[in-house]
Amino acid sequence: GFPGVPGRKGEPGESAHVYRSAFSVGLSNKDTVPNVPIRFTKIFYNQQNHYDGTTGKFHCNIPGLYYFSYHITVYLKDVKVSLYKKDKAMLFTYDKYQEMDLDQASGSVLLHLELGDEVWLQVYGNEDHNGLYADNVNDSTFTGFLLYHDTN
Amino acid sequence: GFPGVPGRKGEPGESAHVYRSAFSVGLSNKDTVPNVPIRFTKIFYNQQNHYDGTTGKFHCNIPGLYYFSYHITVYLKDVKVSLYKKDKAMLFTYDKYQEMDLDQASGSVLLHLELGDEVWLQVYGNEDHNGLYADNVNDSTFTGFLLYHDTN
Amino acid sequence: GFPGVPGRKGEPGESAHVYRSAFSVGLSNKDTVPNVPIRFTKIFYNQQNHYDGTTGKFHCNIPGLYYFSYHITVYLKDVKVSLYKKDKAMLFTYDKYQEMDLDQASGSVLLHLELGDEVWLQVYGNEDHNGLYADNVNDSTFTGFLLYHDTN
Ligand SMILES: [Ca+2]
Ligand SMILES: [Ca+2]
Ligand SMILES: [Ca+2]
Repeated sequence: GFPGVPGRKGEPGESAHVYRSAFSVGLSNKDTVPNVPIRFTKIFYNQQNHYDGTTGKFHCNIPGLYYFSYHITVYLKDVKVSLYKKDKAMLFTYDKYQEMDLDQASGSVLLHLELGDEVWLQVYGNEDHNGLYADNVNDSTFTGFLLYHDTN
Repeated sequence: GFPGVPGRKGEPGESAHVYRSAFSVGLSNKDTVPNVPIRFTKIFYNQQNHYDGTTGKFHCNIPGLYYFSYHITVYLKDVKVSLYKKDKAMLFTYDKYQEMDLDQASGSVLLHLELGDEVWLQVYGNEDHNGLYADNVNDSTFTGFLLYHDTN
Repeated sequence: GFPGVPGRKGEPGESAHVYRSAFSVGLSNKDTVPNVPIRFTKIFYNQQNHYDGTTGKFHCNIPGLYYFSYHITVYLKDVKVSLYKKDKAMLFTYDKYQEMDLDQASGSVLLHLELGDEVWLQVYGNEDHNGLYADNVNDSTFTGFLLYHDTN
């Protein structure tokens, strides 16, 4: 008889695209309180809502490797910020303010997160170190995204 | 008679790797004109040619979520730059120049782009704010890449 | 006779998730030697061990497009650093130190790497330019990750 019909096309490859978690947010004003999570409430992207603007914390819903970055406008006071993961300061960024000057400070890092881990930015030290500035034409931002999800 | 031979095996499924868009470019000199897109003409990577060095604009060919970052050498004048998406300034970075100093200013953000959206960097304000510097051993750069393409 | 049975279903598409290479490291102290690769020995992430803390070099095991970023605390001296690929300085970052100040300098870029290519950070110029600073509460970091692996 005749040959059979061709088989069906294979399934799509496991896509990177079913595993998505990303946020990008900015400071809405310059009233940053030391020693609690900084609340960034200007939203550039937060489609999955894994970043919580009411607490300032990113919540890990997909275990894997994440890239985090932040860019801070330093004005009127020094800036000392830490990137926290589960109540532990993982990364420290310090920039001194000089009179009449205005600077930019930034940090980035890859961190592996387990389900439920929380990540946030926080001023360390006292109120002499919360010189994070933002207004309508000056941003201070915090961004994170899932780079590689865990496989088993 | 006998049944025919089996049909051909199906086609492989869709690869995750067909969605690629990325560029990384630098300033070739320090003559940055305010209020028009900055033209970065030193090319680190632009394989898909989605960045146009003649206009300074990145053109979205694949709808999805993009990461953009820039790092600016601040020298001789202040720097005020904005990241534009479709004629709207999305992100603002300011760094003041002090006599005898030289600073680095940077920004990064995630932006969702539709097909045809254009993204670029531009000096805002006047010619007192175009202190972007570059020469053979000093870079000012602009980078972007597709992180997650849209699925339907 | 009857037609043959349908062909077998095609293979699944290629997964994005088998190609992984990433590292994120920091300076452990402030003794940076000029003109040799900077050794970052504080490890945030290096699961694949493609970064070698004994040499300071990242070794490309998967050809493709990589994103690199670094953030340097500038203190007590100027900082001039280059990102090297295969003994060629690809990217240059300079930040001047001013008395009583402390700054942050950063850079990032996309580079295509072939199998075996090595990438590292290095102070250029002389010992007046190695003002990279780090201690328990001040970081200077270097990060890289595979964004898109090569397909043929
Ligand atoms: Ca400054
Ligand atoms: Ca400086
Ligand atoms: Ca400073």
